[in-house]
Amino acid sequence: MNASLIFSPLAEGAGAPPRQQQLLTRFKQAILDGQLPAGGKLPSSRSLCEELRVSRNTVLAVYEQLIAEGYAQADRQGTRVAALAHAQHSARASVARTGSGRQSRRVATMMPTRDAGDRSLPLTPGMPALNRFPIHAWLRAQERALKQAPPLVLGYGDPLGEPALREAIAQYLRVARGVRCEASQVVVTEGAQGALSLCVRLFANPGETAWMEDPGYGGVRAAFHAGDLKIVAMPVDAGGILIPERAWRTRPARLIHVTPSHQYPTGAVLSLARRLELIAQARQAGSWIIEDDYDSEFRHRGHPVPAMQGLLPEAPVLYVGTFSKTMFPALRIGFLVLPESAGEGAYPALAELLRGGHRLEQLALAEFIAGGQFSRHLGRMRRLYRERQQALREALDRHLAVEHEVQGGDSGLHLTVRLPLAYEDTVISAASRAAGMNVGALSSFSALRRQAANNGLVIGYGNTSEEQFAPLIRRLAGIVRANG
Amino acid sequence: MNASLIFSPLAEGAGAPPRQQQLLTRFKQAILDGQLPAGGKLPSSRSLCEELRVSRNTVLAVYEQLIAEGYAQADRQGTRVAALAHAQHSARASVARTGSGRQSRRVATMMPTRDAGDRSLPLTPGMPALNRFPIHAWLRAQERALKQAPPLVLGYGDPLGEPALREAIAQYLRVARGVRCEASQVVVTEGAQGALSLCVRLFANPGETAWMEDPGYGGVRAAFHAGDLKIVAMPVDAGGILIPERAWRTRPARLIHVTPSHQYPTGAVLSLARRLELIAQARQAGSWIIEDDYDSEFRHRGHPVPAMQGLLPEAPVLYVGTFSKTMFPALRIGFLVLPESAGEGAYPALAELLRGGHRLEQLALAEFIAGGQFSRHLGRMRRLYRERQQALREALDRHLAVEHEVQGGDSGLHLTVRLPLAYEDTVISAASRAAGMNVGALSSFSALRRQAANNGLVIGYGNTSEEQFAPLIRRLAGIVRANG
Repeated sequence: MNASLIFSPLAEGAGAPPRQQQLLTRFKQAILDGQLPAGGKLPSSRSLCEELRVSRNTVLAVYEQLIAEGYAQADRQGTRVAALAHAQHSARASVARTGSGRQSRRVATMMPTRDAGDRSLPLTPGMPALNRFPIHAWLRAQERALKQAPPLVLGYGDPLGEPALREAIAQYLRVARGVRCEASQVVVTEGAQGALSLCVRLFANPGETAWMEDPGYGGVRAAFHAGDLKIVAMPVDAGGILIPERAWRTRPARLIHVTPSHQYPTGAVLSLARRLELIAQARQAGSWIIEDDYDSEFRHRGHPVPAMQGLLPEAPVLYVGTFSKTMFPALRIGFLVLPESAGEGAYPALAELLRGGHRLEQLALAEFIAGGQFSRHLGRMRRLYRERQQALREALDRHLAVEHEVQGGDSGLHLTVRLPLAYEDTVISAASRAAGMNVGALSSFSALRRQAANNGLVIGYGNTSEEQFAPLIRRLAGIVRANG
Repeated sequence: MNASLIFSPLAEGAGAPPRQQQLLTRFKQAILDGQLPAGGKLPSSRSLCEELRVSRNTVLAVYEQLIAEGYAQADRQGTRVAALAHAQHSARASVARTGSGRQSRRVATMMPTRDAGDRSLPLTPGMPALNRFPIHAWLRAQERALKQAPPLVLGYGDPLGEPALREAIAQYLRVARGVRCEASQVVVTEGAQGALSLCVRLFANPGETAWMEDPGYGGVRAAFHAGDLKIVAMPVDAGGILIPERAWRTRPARLIHVTPSHQYPTGAVLSLARRLELIAQARQAGSWIIEDDYDSEFRHRGHPVPAMQGLLPEAPVLYVGTFSKTMFPALRIGFLVLPESAGEGAYPALAELLRGGHRLEQLALAEFIAGGQFSRHLGRMRRLYRERQQALREALDRHLAVEHEVQGGDSGLHLTVRLPLAYEDTVISAASRAAGMNVGALSSFSALRRQAANNGLVIGYGNTSEEQFAPLIRRLAGIVRANG
């Protein structure tokens, strides 16, 4: 038998793996490669000891391990190589690997909806003021939560979320957003993304149609895409999503994603007439409206507009929210408010799809909300963001010399600045990132090619301190001019 | 116009909502119901003040809000009800709601694979020793992680997980499990469930076939189900999953879920010959093997068997693991090791499907592993679980008088106890829960009806202290006898 591999000297010195391990690996390799053919006897331990200068115990341990793992068998004559069907074949079968190279169709088609850029840079859209979050109070709240229920709180918990948190969320939504719900309808999710993915899994089948706003939120495109839905982009104007009458007949949707209180990213508020129209049509068509209320907590101007979900009794609305902007993104706690009509029927599936967990964080958040710390933090942030938006507006007035139109800002963490088509927003966005600020390109939120309607910049003011705006926007203005 | 609703007295006294809010709600309701028809004038503020004894400012504020929200319009003649297309219609459209009652096919078919019972009870399968986890050291590690990178660590972070954690996991898997991987192949997921769901989304298309072990892990059935895959159950014997030769031709699978190092729940170890055969066949068929190494860290007897993933170069294996059992379940951190062949191609899709976050926990875990605290904890728990398994075995020997066969226990946190068909495992499991212990029924892990091959009990020993076993098993034995 060819055992050259086996008898070649072992690696020595620092960094070399233990000799027993080296020897074991050699034997496995030789057996799998067929160098030691099935049924053949393994070399006598004595010969190995002499050749490799290893102790007899080392060799015996190696043989024992080979037997234990099924590479060899012991019989009266000694230790023999096991008969391993297909071992040789599979070791050389990489040619047949083509099949296993395949991935799902999704992987091929799921191109990044947009490059989020380096979100630690100033002017990043949708990023809250991380350095203003009371992180130590937060960690203390977790320790208190731990004291309440050690050590059970380390276990899985309720797949739908901690009852205390579901109650706190329901209470908050009823009062602050006019949402009609009981705690039993609230499901705690892995951020808003988890809620969107849950909407798809609970309410849509592969191949069905889903509508989204254009320009719109890339995350929902990803969620629809992952659920193998046909995505139809609907235009957006100053009154929010604008659905052509005939679309309801020609390609009715199972799911319709909207951001009524602050369209993402244009900032348009969906008018009451359109809200009612949408609900009425959705009822007729058997569609579910996904109301994504992603940053309505930060209302800056005008009167707070209550959520669509509460507008009419039993509206076919799936209400989605997140604490990524009100607390901090890494928390990854969002929620879905199920419609009453979904009822108990959905719970077995929910118990299968969700695994609970993150109980310390959920209990601490429940205490944060119930104890008033959450709304105090919201109040502080609302004032802060109002000042910052004002500072951004003034900087734009003063420094952005080219023709432009500022939109949005009634609520949230960003402004949209439309630019003439001559100024390529994607180019400007890329240049701004190179210049140390993460300004988004409006057209990159759109499935349509860049055009007058969707050419502009999306500028966040949440995580940028007041004094930074003037110098940053001056620099940005230079970039814009240079690309006109 | 019929404004009776409007003019009826407002609620008074403690608990009643502010009168302005009451009045606003009334008007909205009356307008949506059509009691106040489109174009009609709103009552004069004076008349309202007199009727309802509210201040003029209250009325004016209400009217202003109605205008702001689009319920009314101001013109020279005063304030008029806005024309809201479909408002009346939609308010009464609940008859047409049938459509929106619909949910996805999944919801109808996703029945709970099994009732996990109250997992805070002793003998719960798969539950680690929660009260032995060094929770305060863990919280301190999070605080250290925070100090390293405040406040950026509160942001989204890398969708694939913290680089430090991916590196620590890769390093650990190479050494402890013989997995062939670089940090770039490791994706941090929301527990093992998140990793399974990712396998489905990345590597399978709706309608394709997936194989799973029977009896097997309910969570994988849920993940396959959510991905609209056709699930085929494969038998399991003492050598692990047993795939009929012709299955490869008649219904080849895109995904094959196996638990080779400790079959769940029978505890069988997949033999080397079957591992090689499985890899060879999967290569031929273009299948992906999902190696779910859910509790192999707790090896109690015999020699540790390395992971299938590392058995041969470029084996078509997706390696899945979790920290739910080695750390604690509520942590919800698991991981997927992508095959080299998946390569960069999968990353755009991953960036779309995942959102990162949980950075404090991930950085703390990276430090736990790199700093050696993780393996020290593993060592302590291994010894603890070994003792507890021993105590469980002795209690079964001493007290379970009926004919039975104890299986598994080479690693992990549970034993399987097969019983004669006369003893209905589902009935015994239910009775045990009523008696304060969470013993699982083996047949409930199976898609097949209860039969000799899958009738028995699944008993966890991870979260049950040594002295509890004797009394608990004595009680369980009584339940078994009573149901024979």
